[in-house]
Amino acid sequence: MFREGVIVAPATALGGAIAVIRVSGEGSIDCCDAIFRGRKPLTEAATHTIHYGDIVDDSQVVDDVVVAVFRAPHSYTGEESVEISIHGSGYIASKVISLLCSHGARLAEPGEFSARAFAAGRIDLSQAEAVADIIAADSRAAHTLAATQMRGGYSDTLNALRDSLIELTALLELELDFGEEDVEFADRTRLSDMLSKTMHVVKTLKESFRTGNAIRNGVSVAIVGAPNVGKSTLLNRLVGDDRAMVSDIAGTTRDTIEESVVIEGIRFRFVDTAGIRSTEDKLEKMGIERTLRAVSKAQIVINMCEPSGVFEQISLSDEQHEIRVVNKADTVTERHIAGALYISARENIGIDSLRAALAATIDTTNLYRGEAIVSNIRHYEALGAAYTALTAAADAIANNISSELLAEDIRTAIHHIGEITGRTISSDTVLHRIFSSFCIGK
Amino acid sequence: MFREGVIVAPATALGGAIAVIRVSGEGSIDCCDAIFRGRKPLTEAATHTIHYGDIVDDSQVVDDVVVAVFRAPHSYTGEESVEISIHGSGYIASKVISLLCSHGARLAEPGEFSARAFAAGRIDLSQAEAVADIIAADSRAAHTLAATQMRGGYSDTLNALRDSLIELTALLELELDFGEEDVEFADRTRLSDMLSKTMHVVKTLKESFRTGNAIRNGVSVAIVGAPNVGKSTLLNRLVGDDRAMVSDIAGTTRDTIEESVVIEGIRFRFVDTAGIRSTEDKLEKMGIERTLRAVSKAQIVINMCEPSGVFEQISLSDEQHEIRVVNKADTVTERHIAGALYISARENIGIDSLRAALAATIDTTNLYRGEAIVSNIRHYEALGAAYTALTAAADAIANNISSELLAEDIRTAIHHIGEITGRTISSDTVLHRIFSSFCIGK
Repeated sequence: MFREGVIVAPATALGGAIAVIRVSGEGSIDCCDAIFRGRKPLTEAATHTIHYGDIVDDSQVVDDVVVAVFRAPHSYTGEESVEISIHGSGYIASKVISLLCSHGARLAEPGEFSARAFAAGRIDLSQAEAVADIIAADSRAAHTLAATQMRGGYSDTLNALRDSLIELTALLELELDFGEEDVEFADRTRLSDMLSKTMHVVKTLKESFRTGNAIRNGVSVAIVGAPNVGKSTLLNRLVGDDRAMVSDIAGTTRDTIEESVVIEGIRFRFVDTAGIRSTEDKLEKMGIERTLRAVSKAQIVINMCEPSGVFEQISLSDEQHEIRVVNKADTVTERHIAGALYISARENIGIDSLRAALAATIDTTNLYRGEAIVSNIRHYEALGAAYTALTAAADAIANNISSELLAEDIRTAIHHIGEITGRTISSDTVLHRIFSSFCIGK
Repeated sequence: MFREGVIVAPATALGGAIAVIRVSGEGSIDCCDAIFRGRKPLTEAATHTIHYGDIVDDSQVVDDVVVAVFRAPHSYTGEESVEISIHGSGYIASKVISLLCSHGARLAEPGEFSARAFAAGRIDLSQAEAVADIIAADSRAAHTLAATQMRGGYSDTLNALRDSLIELTALLELELDFGEEDVEFADRTRLSDMLSKTMHVVKTLKESFRTGNAIRNGVSVAIVGAPNVGKSTLLNRLVGDDRAMVSDIAGTTRDTIEESVVIEGIRFRFVDTAGIRSTEDKLEKMGIERTLRAVSKAQIVINMCEPSGVFEQISLSDEQHEIRVVNKADTVTERHIAGALYISARENIGIDSLRAALAATIDTTNLYRGEAIVSNIRHYEALGAAYTALTAAADAIANNISSELLAEDIRTAIHHIGEITGRTISSDTVLHRIFSSFCIGK
């Protein structure tokens, strides 16, 4: 993973007015200076300064550029770095990168800039992962989640957790050193207390994954109901209003993903479901089975019927929310079905209440208070492993097992929590797996 | 077109590791400083310096960013400018732009940054147009063409032309001032000489449009021939080899446009042609008619047959090239058809010769010598209008028409040549039409 040398990659997407080529590693400035003609050589440039000039191939001008110089350790990677702003053409980007490569640079691997920042101790692993998340974030909640993690608030929580576990082992090890004298330095009741407090924190973090995952990846919603009950009209209503809102700043937002909508900062993704009804047709039955599978995976099911109709009977897990909606409410005056929202998708009645009901399924209070919320499956798994080890430790105390084995369980928990920020990861393979999922230039 | 105020827009495409937001106009630094928290205020920053810090909304951190400060007149627009490098998310870009707008900036119109650079006299109109061209350039020739024009080499040629015409009118006007004394300051033979020299330059420029247009927009190629003669195999061979070449630098080049290939720095675009054959089927006849129309518009027609076959009879205009190709040459030993290239698309025989034949249709000698080549239809039309006026002037001299009318013709020519660099354009409407075809942030 951590190869030496000067690396280069486009840091921005191509296709805009300008594009930025990022160069990092000892020798970056020399490498860029070899193809740069400005008022003075880049080698004489102070850190954090900008220089206008030409990128040249022999004496042919490739492009006029603006070059930013960063001297070690004051850069993203902690290394000497250069950022070249070129005109945003793929041709120029390729050409400039080729030229740099012919002067000693090599194309960066995916995530290599962030991997170097990690290796230099500028960011920990969870912060590096948050960089990838913040780029992908397309809603306020997902952005806040990633931003909190990137700024290290998340790492602070985990490090505090790890510190208190280290304190526990220190007490236990002290006891082991004096083992022959049969002294219990570590009061078992106090140990047990500390342990259960720690377990509570780990459990809370672990449980936050449901929310974190929903925020990061969007909440899946299935709309079910008889044919012609108005499922598509509702979807168009929800998606259409959102589209109109996001298009306020033209050209700045990415194409909205089909069938998804942001409500109160959270993205809801609508699952395509065919109408459910009794049928003998084999092909149609298969379609309905597929729908039922999709419904079983959705986090929220909007169950929809007409004022005179009945709701579909759907079996849901504890993790799933059902929102019952009576559509075409504008056609009736009586609203006798309890616990159901009366709406008219076509007439835009009750849609705000439905939106509020959707948003209420995800509790974002902790998120905006800046509390740590787990959204990464790797972290979730590490917390699970830590929790298992802590449970074993608690059992050991309850059953008066030797301090040695108890300390071993706690060290296992420390290891797994350290995995999240990368404190205990030294394996290249694991790091490679993490960083290689990044895009190039990151 | 030239509205006041601080303007903001994304300067890069979104979707990379970072994105750049560009801010320009008097007050840009104050505007950015209002949402920036760094080690020191941006208002104290020297020009061409870079500052690390946070973009904040109230006290909430939106993103950690790198800000580049440019003080007037040392920026692209000639105005005070700021470039903010954010993490490359659409959400953050929208948020930062919204924040700037709530502190007095407004979203830039398409091309407004370049329009301001033009208004400040930093670049002329043909240079501004070249900025748009250089971003779109996807081949070496198209890039060289735009780069020459952007660096002003093209403007120099036009300005020299304009200067010599102004000299002509000066001589004529001097004569008019002394008109009553009946003195001919401007020797008619000398005038005629100067005029015909100028006309020659304008004509050469005008004629370069064929090459320039082909380089800028790609050369359209139709492959015609009987069904199963190997048209698709040839296309895949040409396109496939090119794809393999461009994919050397992964992630840097844009998705290659379907069915196009760069040969010796020039892009060739293949026109989709259905097989031509005699048929009575009405639908098929319509398809063939469409093909024939496509062929009639193609700049190059590759006419293809088998060793035992005959070539399609196609009527071509003077502007069109025909390249005759005998495919499946590996199946025969005799090569008796004169003036045809023997190739095997499947066995990769003779493909380099075909590539050379394609490239030879476009003469790029002048391009790489840095000579002015017209590629913009607006410029081509202006040159045409200038040429018409100069022809009228030449006629005026030949027919001993009064100096007054002669001067008028030459002034018309000056006007049209000035239009290209924007020297004589004062109409907002015309400028708006030119700049509004630019993308936002440019």
